[in-house]
Parts: sequence; structure tokens; C-alpha cells
Amino acid sequence: MIIVLKPDATEQQITHLVKRVKALGLKPMISKGVERTIIGVIGEEDVLRVQPLEIFPGVEKVVPILAPYKLVSREFKPNGTVISLNSHAAVGGKPLVIMAGPCAVENYETLLAIAKSVKKAGATVLRGGAYKPRTSPYSFQGLEEEGLKYLKDVSKKVGMLTITELMDVRDLDLVERHVDIIQIGARNMQNFDLLKEVGLSKKPVLLKRGMASTIKEWLLSAEYILQNGNFNVMLCERGIRTFETDTRFTLDINAVPVIKGSSHLPVIVDPSHSTGRWGLVPAIAKAGIAAGADGLLIEVHNKPEEALCDGPQSILPDRFAKLMGELKRVARAVGRDL
Amino acid sequence: MIIVLKPDATEQQITHLVKRVKALGLKPMISKGVERTIIGVIGEEDVLRVQPLEIFPGVEKVVPILAPYKLVSREFKPNGTVISLNSHAAVGGKPLVIMAGPCAVENYETLLAIAKSVKKAGATVLRGGAYKPRTSPYSFQGLEEEGLKYLKDVSKKVGMLTITELMDVRDLDLVERHVDIIQIGARNMQNFDLLKEVGLSKKPVLLKRGMASTIKEWLLSAEYILQNGNFNVMLCERGIRTFETDTRFTLDINAVPVIKGSSHLPVIVDPSHSTGRWGLVPAIAKAGIAAGADGLLIEVHNKPEEALCDGPQSILPDRFAKLMGELKRVARAVGRDL
Amino acid sequence: MIIVLKPDATEQQITHLVKRVKALGLKPMISKGVERTIIGVIGEEDVLRVQPLEIFPGVEKVVPILAPYKLVSREFKPNGTVISLNSHAAVGGKPLVIMAGPCAVENYETLLAIAKSVKKAGATVLRGGAYKPRTSPYSFQGLEEEGLKYLKDVSKKVGMLTITELMDVRDLDLVERHVDIIQIGARNMQNFDLLKEVGLSKKPVLLKRGMASTIKEWLLSAEYILQNGNFNVMLCERGIRTFETDTRFTLDINAVPVIKGSSHLPVIVDPSHSTGRWGLVPAIAKAGIAAGADGLLIEVHNKPEEALCDGPQSILPDRFAKLMGELKRVARAVGRDL
Amino acid sequence: MIIVLKPDATEQQITHLVKRVKALGLKPMISKGVERTIIGVIGEEDVLRVQPLEIFPGVEKVVPILAPYKLVSREFKPNGTVISLNSHAAVGGKPLVIMAGPCAVENYETLLAIAKSVKKAGATVLRGGAYKPRTSPYSFQGLEEEGLKYLKDVSKKVGMLTITELMDVRDLDLVERHVDIIQIGARNMQNFDLLKEVGLSKKPVLLKRGMASTIKEWLLSAEYILQNGNFNVMLCERGIRTFETDTRFTLDINAVPVIKGSSHLPVIVDPSHSTGRWGLVPAIAKAGIAAGADGLLIEVHNKPEEALCDGPQSILPDRFAKLMGELKRVARAVGRDL
Repeated sequence: MIIVLKPDATEQQITHLVKRVKALGLKPMISKGVERTIIGVIGEEDVLRVQPLEIFPGVEKVVPILAPYKLVSREFKPNGTVISLNSHAAVGGKPLVIMAGPCAVENYETLLAIAKSVKKAGATVLRGGAYKPRTSPYSFQGLEEEGLKYLKDVSKKVGMLTITELMDVRDLDLVERHVDIIQIGARNMQNFDLLKEVGLSKKPVLLKRGMASTIKEWLLSAEYILQNGNFNVMLCERGIRTFETDTRFTLDINAVPVIKGSSHLPVIVDPSHSTGRWGLVPAIAKAGIAAGADGLLIEVHNKPEEALCDGPQSILPDRFAKLMGELKRVARAVGRDL
Repeated sequence: MIIVLKPDATEQQITHLVKRVKALGLKPMISKGVERTIIGVIGEEDVLRVQPLEIFPGVEKVVPILAPYKLVSREFKPNGTVISLNSHAAVGGKPLVIMAGPCAVENYETLLAIAKSVKKAGATVLRGGAYKPRTSPYSFQGLEEEGLKYLKDVSKKVGMLTITELMDVRDLDLVERHVDIIQIGARNMQNFDLLKEVGLSKKPVLLKRGMASTIKEWLLSAEYILQNGNFNVMLCERGIRTFETDTRFTLDINAVPVIKGSSHLPVIVDPSHSTGRWGLVPAIAKAGIAAGADGLLIEVHNKPEEALCDGPQSILPDRFAKLMGELKRVARAVGRDL
Repeated sequence: MIIVLKPDATEQQITHLVKRVKALGLKPMISKGVERTIIGVIGEEDVLRVQPLEIFPGVEKVVPILAPYKLVSREFKPNGTVISLNSHAAVGGKPLVIMAGPCAVENYETLLAIAKSVKKAGATVLRGGAYKPRTSPYSFQGLEEEGLKYLKDVSKKVGMLTITELMDVRDLDLVERHVDIIQIGARNMQNFDLLKEVGLSKKPVLLKRGMASTIKEWLLSAEYILQNGNFNVMLCERGIRTFETDTRFTLDINAVPVIKGSSHLPVIVDPSHSTGRWGLVPAIAKAGIAAGADGLLIEVHNKPEEALCDGPQSILPDRFAKLMGELKRVARAVGRDL
Repeated sequence: MIIVLKPDATEQQITHLVKRVKALGLKPMISKGVERTIIGVIGEEDVLRVQPLEIFPGVEKVVPILAPYKLVSREFKPNGTVISLNSHAAVGGKPLVIMAGPCAVENYETLLAIAKSVKKAGATVLRGGAYKPRTSPYSFQGLEEEGLKYLKDVSKKVGMLTITELMDVRDLDLVERHVDIIQIGARNMQNFDLLKEVGLSKKPVLLKRGMASTIKEWLLSAEYILQNGNFNVMLCERGIRTFETDTRFTLDINAVPVIKGSSHLPVIVDPSHSTGRWGLVPAIAKAGIAAGADGLLIEVHNKPEEALCDGPQSILPDRFAKLMGELKRVARAVGRDL
């Protein structure tokens, strides 16, 4: 941590600061420049992070040197994490993982029909929401426990793994019993109590990026989960909020290589929510793979006209099957399998 | 709702759409223009809102006509809501309400000292966090139940009302028993299960705006609370996330008159979080009042150097007392009392 | 255009509006709903676009139906534009076009060395700034005419085409005489006098997206150029400004398929400015191609440590050569050549 | 400037860096910490600013210590600048300056009528665009020279000063001859050639903030003007682009006290463009004054229904006159005159 002093900082103020830094068991290194004095602080930066040094008289700004996260960083674990889903599927290895299915679990028949088609096209994980975070209280809120059961039954029948969103700490047990991967949605990325609870779970967690969260904040939210003992976390880029209104969100494609550089956790791209328009899903799915993502989360519906949520961004099973062929070629071009 | 068709929409597609609209008990009105055909839909728009009409073949876009919220709208209730806090304090009337105190409850003595000073300066409500939503798991997470008790004891001693943040549905009972106003933080603005729970509470709720939430989404989150029966909701603008980095957030001052026009709920401005710098708090507090806010939420600390959170944005008791005098003059200039 | 009236709009107000619409030679279609009356306007929407109908008493909002641009739209020209650069190079066809070179032309020798290496690796167009739009007046401002001469001499020597940025209408003649493609930078995307002037030029124009411009505004800026007679415009996505600070800008990858859907103009992706970090350039270059871009604009420098601008985002000639091999594979995977 | 090294930086890399820093006439100060080595650089930071030190092997990041601007900074000139407009009007002193008028000069009669009314209500400067930067080429582009003449004639007749926007360097002479204050619009904030030219003018300049420009970039654009000799610059906050769509832009009210702290230049607030809705103008105008602005720029039109641009954000002369009374009270409450 580096403390930059104001041009008119007094000797007394500097002495006061130095004393405080020493009291924390750290070593201050003073450099007096022509226009500014700076104090470099050596030692465990964490001790200082909680101290509001900006507020000390004479201080202009405080510059942290180290990244604020540890367990999720690539410095902590240089090799990429590979999360084993079952005996023949894993996230983060050479093969990509495709998760597909409807936005929400609507009924058994529809789920089964969609599951069969995405399984046939090559998807490994069936997605489907039982608890839906809806902007409006007047929108469909999900089938809850009934939806979880359909997910479990259908996935067993077709031979797929499952992922669903958990919104409320009180539903954790139920969700754990029914699905293979727990999704934390964008709106709950900083629901810290929820993060702590899934940190105690044994299930892999897919953590979506908050729509206005920086990559740093996203990694810190993942840190909450790892810190509680669950290292099986994958990060899902699903678009951030910008001024552009032609698409629902703006996929931050830069985030894929940035995360790959800063963290050992696998990265998933969601081309459905990040665009909000089914016609854009294929192009963005391919871009995600080309940028280095370890998998995709795609909304597929056999009757988008009747979908109870996110119809406009769901692609048809046929388009999905065709896309899988296209993705295979892009995957190979960048040294991955599908 | 208006459905705009593509230039090449076929008669068959139009018939298909019209049939669907009628099946929902609504009345379609077709207008054929030179370049486009449009269908105006008359009837309860809510029925249509959950239908993904954008996905129908031949449809270019769907334009909602009505605001998606009802109970929070000024059309629903033309007169502004006045929330009674006790026999002599209310939010939304002519007198402004000032809520002040430390970011977090740290210990009894500090809280008491700060409470005495803000009470003396004219604040009505004591703020202080017992559960703290911290970006990093390594930051101070709050005193929890102990903090709630300090809040209750101190407020009784000095004669103030209290506000604290609720983060987890499991803590609602405890929070309800100890404080007068329940705060829902920016990070939980779309934690819908939490909104539903406080909707069942009898306590007034202060709902902070999510840092990337539109005004429409914010009002829809409030709608969740009102819909469950709790009409005592006040909205708190606390800054949105933009590209500007000189301040922690960007206070959306426009939101104050926009909300006043669209909704009957009172509006509170938080000049501390929206700037992140104590030196900016007085100017922004005054601007908030001038723009029409019904109150302010301000962080005050007697030793910001030692504050366990948000020291850089807390003002000293003396500066707060001086600010109260300045605010009084601005309040009167815009026809309010303080 | 659709005019939505307020719930309390009077008959008199409606009559006033209808009269105005008719006076403009248009046909109003009134639909009275339960909660709102709407007026659909049939005829040339442009006539209405300049009328501030929102301001009429009784009007709640006005919803345009047609896109505000014409000449750049795919409706106007269903087939994609292919811009011929010379007898064997074109932008917008099956082969991709790679433009590479230093941020700024610094001196003859450096430019020559870089040009040789990018030409050898397969780039077709040499980029290099002679006029530099620098945020600070204290930064290197470019070699101006001398730089243009170096570009011309070097490109002839190595057999490449050239592109450089034009900032000032007074330099148009000089720039036209020396380079093959005129670049309009992000900061000048809405410098309308400059757009009008290059609209009169015969040279192809690469129009960068403004860092806070919507896709609609970008297309309208291109419309200025086409409207003056120059149809050889390519659009360059170079990152938009968002709240994320880990990268210099956020590449809006969604914009590639969006533009492909709305316009017939070719799209170029700039992975250098949109990331600001050389380590991210390869991943983003591949993503751009996978998403459907027609070409790339990449900063390459043989001594980035000594570059007079944008060193941190320039890749070395060796890395560029390796990248070209990787891009070839991705290009083929999506049906393009390189 | 502080150079933070990577954890695995070698001695050789450090030596290489140190050599380079010394070669620039600066003094490196090395501090070896437990996890990182940092190098503080003492001396003229500007020398280093143009060096891409981030690119050196072993460097993790480079942190500037000093603000990148000089002449506009409050450190350079501790007292606020007061720009004299004529013998009895100045910007930056205790009295506020109100600039009002139509968006565009449309014809002599309309301009005269509006000028009379705003003058009577207390405005000092008449605004009106002769050259209009319009997003669409199909919108009204301004009366150009004819408009400048009307501005001059009308202002003489009613006894006001004038302000108009300059868009093209070729029009500078003409604009200088006709108006008192030259406005540089948001879209041209980084049109550096234009900034350099008005830097050579003797007329006061009002520099609007770019819609996606940080405060730092805005101050650097002002630095271009001061550096060329023109110190009579006022900064106009007119709203930045954010995700919020209920208003045209988001007024960054925080910018007012931030600029007051960092710079000696006067600040003007534009409540018309920053909201885009006439109903919000009064609240935001009052907020601007309460936050410390030195003046306002307000669009007023006597027939907004017929205005050729920006009708929806123009207020009527009567509302403006009433607003002036309200502003007077707020101005006094914060120690200013009107």
C-alpha cells in the first residue's frame, strides 16, 4: 500500500501516520519527492485495508498494491481449476461444457421435450429455473419445489446433469437435493449471506456477474464462497449494464481473458441474457468460445412464443443443434474440444 | 401495448397474432401504414406483459404503453405518501427528516457519542449498521445482534428513532424488534425474497436504489413491498455506477424530481455513499434538498480515522452541526422546514 | 409514429393534435383504450420527427416506429457492401482484411521495420497516426505532414495500403493525397462538419464508434457520410466506456451481429483500443472474427517500450505473426478466409 | 509516479527499469516489500508520463501521483477565476450568471420575443444556436451566419450578452465577430484542433463536458485552451450518459463540488440538456445552485410546440420568470446573489 501525501502535509501529520502504520506491525518507507512525499507500507496489506487512511490529515490518496482477493487468484493457484461434475464431465478442462434449456421450468412435458433435444445436440447440463428473480411482482415467479422435481426427473430420464438458480438461503437444502450445480444469479452476486451458505455446500457453484459489478468485485464475491470451503466455483459472464439499448445488456467479452489471467476459476459465457435477442445468440456464443471461455449457458425453448419468461432470447432446438456444429469448429480452431 | 410489424409481415402472421390477442380477452386495433402495420391492443395490459410477443413471426417490436407498476404510481395515489414514524415525526410532509450516524455500529460508547451530537444538531433518526454488506470477506462484517441492542439502547437514551440494514430474511424478526425503520441496501434491491418479507412487516422500509438499477426497476422493487401490504416505503437515491471514477458513485439528482412525478412515495438522498468523499457531502446534501428530497441519510463519525467502515465519507459532528444550519436555509428557500 | 396520450387528455387537446398531424399531410388513426388513447400516424415519418410532439398538452410520450437512418440500413440495401480497396483487396467480402501498424508514425525507420513485419505476417493495410487526438496537451501530437509522407513512402516500398486518422477539415486534401483509407476517430464520430467533408471525398472511410455512442447514433453518423455521396464506409467497433476499470474500454461484441442485422456496411473490430492491454489482444481479435467482423485494426510495435503512444496495448511483430496463424483457423471455422 | 513490480520481477528487470528512469533525469527510490518491490520516481512526472512503463518486463502497474493537468488546477491558482463579461457582469463572482434562450436561432421575431422575456426575468446572457450539432443529418442544422446576425441584433436591442456554439474551426472568425461567449459543445469536447483555436481567441469560452468524459479528461480539454493563452474558460456540466433512460442524460451533480475543489475555473450547470424534460428543469436548476454552481444555461422558448429543436426540454417564459424568483431564494440560502 502506498500513501501519497498532500503537497502541504506537515511533519507532524507525517509522524502521526508513521506511528499508526508501525502500531499495526508494518514498516513504513518514506520517500520525499519534489512535489509530494509518499510512504510505502511493507507487510501484510490486509491489516491496512480496513483502515481509512484517506481520512488522516495530510493524506491525498491511498493506493493499494495487491489485489484484494487471494484464494481465487492465479497467484494463489497457478494452474486452472477443473471442476469435476461426474465421472465423465468436468468444467475447466480441454472439453467445453454446454449448459442449455429453458429459462424457467414450466411443466414436465415441455422440459422433457427440450431436454431431449439439447441432449441429442450435445449439451451436458440441463438448465431451468424453479425460482425466478423477476423485476416485476406481476411476472411468473417459478414453480419452486415442483420445478426442482421436474428437473431431477427429466435429467435422470435423459441422462444429463442439472443447474438451477438459488435465491433464498432457506431453499438451499431443497436445491442441493435436486440439482448438480447451484447458480447464483446476477441480482444476488452481492447477497453475501447467500454466498456464505453456498460456500458451505459441496455442490459446484456457478456465480453470475452482477450487472454493474466490476471484475474485482465479482472475484471478491467468489472469494466469499472459496473462503467458506467450496472451491468448485465457475464464473459466468452474462452481460453488464451500459448505455446501449439495442441489446438487453452488453457482453463484456474482455472479461474472459482478464479472468483467465487473474484467476484460476473456469469461465462460462451466457450469450442469451447478455444480448436478450435470439438472433444474436449464435454469433456471441462463438465469440465467447474464441475468447477462451470454458463453456456456455444457453436458453433453448421449443415454443418460445409460449415461454413464460425470456422467450425473445431463447433459440429453437433446431437452431441450437446447428449452433453446436458451428461451435465445434470454433472450439477446435482455438484448441478446445466439444 | 402496441405491436409494430415488420415491413414484410404476411397476412397469415397478422391473423395469427390477432387470434392470440383475442384469445387473451383483449381487443386488437389494426392500423395499416405505408411502411408498417401496427396493432394497438386495448384492455388489461398486464395480461399481455408476460407474453413474449416479440418472438411471434412478423413482429418487429412491442411497445408498452402503461408503466409496469401500479401501487407505487402517482396515478394510483395522487397525493404524496406521508409515513408517520411516531407522534411527532413523519417522512414526506413539509418538515424534512435527517437520518445520521456511523456507517456501522462499532461499540456502545462511540455510538452514544455520535448519537448525542447528531441529536443535538437536529437529526431525528439514528443510523448504524449491525449487518454490513461488504464487498470483501476480509472486511468488518458487523456486530449483528449485539449491534442491534446498542442501537436500541442508545436511541432510547438520547430520544431518537433508528434505522438499520436488513440483509437476510432470517434476521427479520430480530431487526423488527430492535429498530424503527428497516433499510434494504442497494445490493439487495432485487433480492425479491427479502422484499416480499419486509412487505409483510409493519415497519417502515427505506429502499435504496441498486447501483445499476433504472428508476423503473426501483419502483418495481418497491411494488413488491406494497403488493404484500406494506405501504410505508421511502425510496433512497444513493448514487448509481457510471464511468466517472473521481467519486465513488454518481448521485442521480434527476431521480428526485422524476420519482416525485411518477410516484407518491417519499424520496431520501444519501450524499455520503453517492460521493464517497466527506468533502463533497455538504454540497450534495444541499442539492438534494433543493431538488425536492424529503430527507437525507448522512454518515457522521466522531473519529473517522478509526471507523471500521466508510471513514472517508463520514463527516465530523461539528461539520454536521454546521451543515444542519446550512440545510435549514436551503429547506426554507424551497418551502420546507427543518 | 405513435402518440400516447395522458389518461386525462381532453377532447380539445386531442383535436388540437389531430389538426397538427393532418396539417403536415399525415393521417392520424385514433384508438381509444380503457386506460389510454393512442394516435397512430401514417405517412412519411420524417416529417414528424422534427416536431416536438412530446410537448403538446395531453401527450404522454411519442414512440417512433421506423429507424431514423435510411441509406445505411439493410432495408435500403439488402446485400452487404463490399468496398474495393484496390484490384485485389476489398472489405466486406469473404476474405478478412487485417490493418496493422503502430499507433503513431514516429519516424521512417521504425515505421518501415513494423510495416515489413506485418506485411510478411499477412496484413494488407498499414495503420499509423500522423495527427493524434491526445487527451492531454502535453502528450505527443503527431508528425503531421511529415508522418503522412513516411506512410506513403513506406507503404509503396513494402506494397501495402494505408489508413490514417483525419481530425481537422483543413487537413483533408493532404490526407487524401497520401493515404488510401481515411479514419474518423471515436472522439470525432459526432464532428458533423468533418463527416460532411469526408462524405464528399472519394476515399473509403473507416468510422470509429464514439466511446459513448449508441449503435443508432453511430449509424446516423455514417448516414451523414453516405448522404453526401460517399458509400464506402466501414464501421469500427473500438470499445465503449463503461464502469469497468480493469480494461481501458469494454468491447461491445454484441455490436458486430447487431450492425450486420441493421446495416449493409462492413464491420471492423479494434482489439487494441478496446482493451488497452496487449495481453488481451489475441483473445479479443479471435472473438471479433468469430462474431462476424470483416476485419481487424491492430496496433503492432517493434519496441513498445519506446512507443510514443499506446505502448501498453501494442503487440510485438512476433506475437502478431503467431496471432495471424490463430486468426486463420478461426476465420475458416466461421466460413471466412484470411 | 510509482512503479509496482510483479512478484516474480528479476533483478535484471529492475536494473533495466532503474537505468531508464535515471536516463530521463529522474531519481528512482526502491522499496522492497514482502510481496512486491516498488519504485518511487522523484522529479518532473511529465517526463515519465509519455513513457509506456507498463510495458517493461517485470512491471505490474504504474500509478501516477500528480494530476495530469496544471494550468487549470487549483494548486496552480488557489483563488477562483472571475471572468469579466463586461463592465457589470462577470462569471465566478458572488452574483450568479443566468444564460437563457432558445436551443436554436430560428428567426428574428421569435428570438426577439424570447430575449425580451428572459431579459425581463433577469437573465444576463442570451443563448441561441446558429450551428447545430444534430445526431441525424435529416434534422434542422441551423441558420449559420444569418443566425449569428440575429443574435447580435437582438442582443443589442434588448441589452444582453450572447453565447453560441462553434463547431468548425473555419467559422471561428465569424463567431468571434458576432457573439460574446464561444460555446464548445459536448460532442466537440475532445475536438483538439478546435480547442487549440479557441485557445488563441480573446473571447471567453464555455466548455461543455463530453457525455462520456471523466472530470479529469474535461479538465485536460480545458488545459488545451489555457495552454494556448486563453484563461477565460468556464466549465459546463450538461449531463453524462448512463444506463438510465427516463431522462435524456444524468446530471453529474457531484461534478460541481469536485471541480470547485480541483480547479479555479467557474462552473455552469445546464438543467435542460441534462434532463431533456422541461418538467425537471426547475428542480435541477435549484440543485445546481445549491451545489455551488456559478451560473445556469437554460433553454427557454415561447412556443416549444413549434421549436425546431429541443422543444421537450424548453420551458415557457412564464415558468422561467417564476423559476428566477425561486433561484433567487436558493442563491441567497447558499450565500450567492441573483
